[in-house]
Amino acid sequence: MTEAFDAVDLIRAKRDKRELSTAEIDWLVDAFTRGYVADEQMSAWAMAVLLNGMTRREIRDLTLAMIESGERMSFDGLGKATVDKHSTGGVGDKITLPLAPLVAAFGVAVPQLSGRGLGHTGGTLDKLESVPGWRADVTPEAMRDQLRDIGAVICAAGAGLAPADKRLYALRDTTGTVEAIPLIASSIMSKKIAEGTGALVLDVKFGEGAFMQDPALARELARTMVDLGRDAGVATSALLTDMSVPLGLTIGNALEVRESVEVLAGGGPSDVVELTVALAREMLAAVGQADADPAAALADGRAMDVWRRMIAAQGGDPDAELPTARETEVVVAPRSGVLTEQHALPFGIAAWRLGAGRARQQDPVSPGAGIELHAKPGDAVKEGQPLFTLHADEESRIPRALEALEGAWTIGDEAPAARPLIVDRIA
Amino acid sequence: MTEAFDAVDLIRAKRDKRELSTAEIDWLVDAFTRGYVADEQMSAWAMAVLLNGMTRREIRDLTLAMIESGERMSFDGLGKATVDKHSTGGVGDKITLPLAPLVAAFGVAVPQLSGRGLGHTGGTLDKLESVPGWRADVTPEAMRDQLRDIGAVICAAGAGLAPADKRLYALRDTTGTVEAIPLIASSIMSKKIAEGTGALVLDVKFGEGAFMQDPALARELARTMVDLGRDAGVATSALLTDMSVPLGLTIGNALEVRESVEVLAGGGPSDVVELTVALAREMLAAVGQADADPAAALADGRAMDVWRRMIAAQGGDPDAELPTARETEVVVAPRSGVLTEQHALPFGIAAWRLGAGRARQQDPVSPGAGIELHAKPGDAVKEGQPLFTLHADEESRIPRALEALEGAWTIGDEAPAARPLIVDRIA
Repeated sequence: MTEAFDAVDLIRAKRDKRELSTAEIDWLVDAFTRGYVADEQMSAWAMAVLLNGMTRREIRDLTLAMIESGERMSFDGLGKATVDKHSTGGVGDKITLPLAPLVAAFGVAVPQLSGRGLGHTGGTLDKLESVPGWRADVTPEAMRDQLRDIGAVICAAGAGLAPADKRLYALRDTTGTVEAIPLIASSIMSKKIAEGTGALVLDVKFGEGAFMQDPALARELARTMVDLGRDAGVATSALLTDMSVPLGLTIGNALEVRESVEVLAGGGPSDVVELTVALAREMLAAVGQADADPAAALADGRAMDVWRRMIAAQGGDPDAELPTARETEVVVAPRSGVLTEQHALPFGIAAWRLGAGRARQQDPVSPGAGIELHAKPGDAVKEGQPLFTLHADEESRIPRALEALEGAWTIGDEAPAARPLIVDRIA
Repeated sequence: MTEAFDAVDLIRAKRDKRELSTAEIDWLVDAFTRGYVADEQMSAWAMAVLLNGMTRREIRDLTLAMIESGERMSFDGLGKATVDKHSTGGVGDKITLPLAPLVAAFGVAVPQLSGRGLGHTGGTLDKLESVPGWRADVTPEAMRDQLRDIGAVICAAGAGLAPADKRLYALRDTTGTVEAIPLIASSIMSKKIAEGTGALVLDVKFGEGAFMQDPALARELARTMVDLGRDAGVATSALLTDMSVPLGLTIGNALEVRESVEVLAGGGPSDVVELTVALAREMLAAVGQADADPAAALADGRAMDVWRRMIAAQGGDPDAELPTARETEVVVAPRSGVLTEQHALPFGIAAWRLGAGRARQQDPVSPGAGIELHAKPGDAVKEGQPLFTLHADEESRIPRALEALEGAWTIGDEAPAARPLIVDRIA
């Protein structure tokens, strides 16, 4: 950091669609992290970026500058290839849970740093924390040991990884500047690259239950992140997947762990299995195992073995009973027909209102709360047959969840057109 | 204020080019003034406004909301029409000094609330404060008395006028969001309308020494402010004037007062006289005196009489000698020819560096510092003839001022094409 710039000049530059130099971006991120650039300046800059965009070179420099703001992990000398997966988040998206042990079953290290949920999409750590005894906090040394001995670790990211991104993300959240592709891409990728993975597979979701609803924008985000990963020397590819309908048959922390264990036992809902296997194939191909057969490792118990060891290594009891919510409410089909619609967003909001998610960072979640789906679009239903069950610790939460679900599902006479779950692969 | 909105929603709305309702704008300005909307939110909103614009209705609502954030003055019952003038600021722009007493000489009240300078354009109060004894602070009662008895008052605006604008302006200054026409227009007009004038004439400048350099943008700003004034019931018109060359032959506080007194004595540089008379005609026409002859009131001493009374009423001695700077440096023509170029911006910056302006709000100014011009573009000059004289209290300021003036003027062989000073009238 030898050169000094003026924050107002850099805001104006982006406002006037000028490309910032590497030195300018480095200075801005460093000065923001140190508090020399004020929040009101950074938010104006973020809005200019949102409206005017950034070049591929600028996005790469921003990402590298955010990585430079903190620590960088390394898994060199582990004697194994490392590969990680990131999902942009969706309703019922528990894929990380079966996926990490599945890939590790092939002798690959999967260092999966995860977060907690905010809003209607759940957090992987919240889900695993419903397993009695399981702890999200793992020291770097323990993480390394676990990767060497077991292969998979799902844990909380330390505060030292890309602190500039943490500060910027909190600011974007309150200033209407979340939805900027250069900022989303650099936020995700700075953490993933700082984490030191050798390869990365992205699950970029579109559709109403996704963060990025528009498929064209989701594709642009995927493309931007794949480019970023490759520019930073991380073998990166992405699957573009549909998040119009909840993934699997459960939404909620313990409910989703239960479903994940079903998948690891060789069963589980077909969409969860399909996505888990497809992402596992991508991850394994990225580390030179294009011929690996992940479906077999689900069927024969190899993935389950890794799961059990991974849970136990972090203090969890894989045989313990999962928590259940105190109250349930079953919603039944008002008539016979075919379930034609099941909208991800209202189901996500309903699960959140039931206690599965949090409104503020400091809120607790109810481990047993959420929704079990008993039918998926295309399924025939009979009048009086259960469509879904709401789970909550307090009965008072149920009416507002039901309110969110008004109009969220439809029973018709004809089966809807099948929608492919995995729409494209970007590499 | 009955309805409550969410700041992030309103930022997103402007970001996504949605028109805000009157209630939304009222809430935003009120909540920002009260501190419920944070600086980083308002700056992101301001950037969205800068890049996406506002409708005429939104700009009117924003202006009215800023007026509502504070006090509103009224000159009803004065028994005189009131008319005010506002200039967007330029290099050597001392027009308010001769203009206010000139218009008041026709029995009109001119309540001229003014500011101090920041950067390369001077402030009217800084200029008048070089008159020994003169005070900018006038109570509302004294202001009213002075308007009734003398007709003209030039004084500092009270802190109670449009406080939301003050807060927003300070924020825009550090966040690269100054150059937004809706925000400039509402900032200027909220103060002018809150001031309670019945009519208003705007001097909107373009060219390199102006705040708004591009003539097309200056025209848009003029049009926006004229519409705003009319929407608020204030008879408003604007002159579009060229600020490529310094106005008159002086830049600096006491130097400009001296030149203003020359104009009031019936002399002075032709460009200053031309603009003073043109603006006086506009102001007088706006209050029903389209046939008034302001040039005659300069020639026969009526305007000078008002000036002397106006200065004295605020503690100033109109006969006192004006302060002069301790050091001078004369720059002479290196060859004979015609002065072809004299760029306003470097001359403004040089005067600022000599001590005529301030870099920070709290800095003092040197009353005697500045630049005297001895030739204007089109004038024939002889080798060795003085072109301009720098005035400063400290000799050490002179080299940096000379540096700013490198390439700021040119001597050629052919006279440049004459440039009209007043380019258009917008009403």
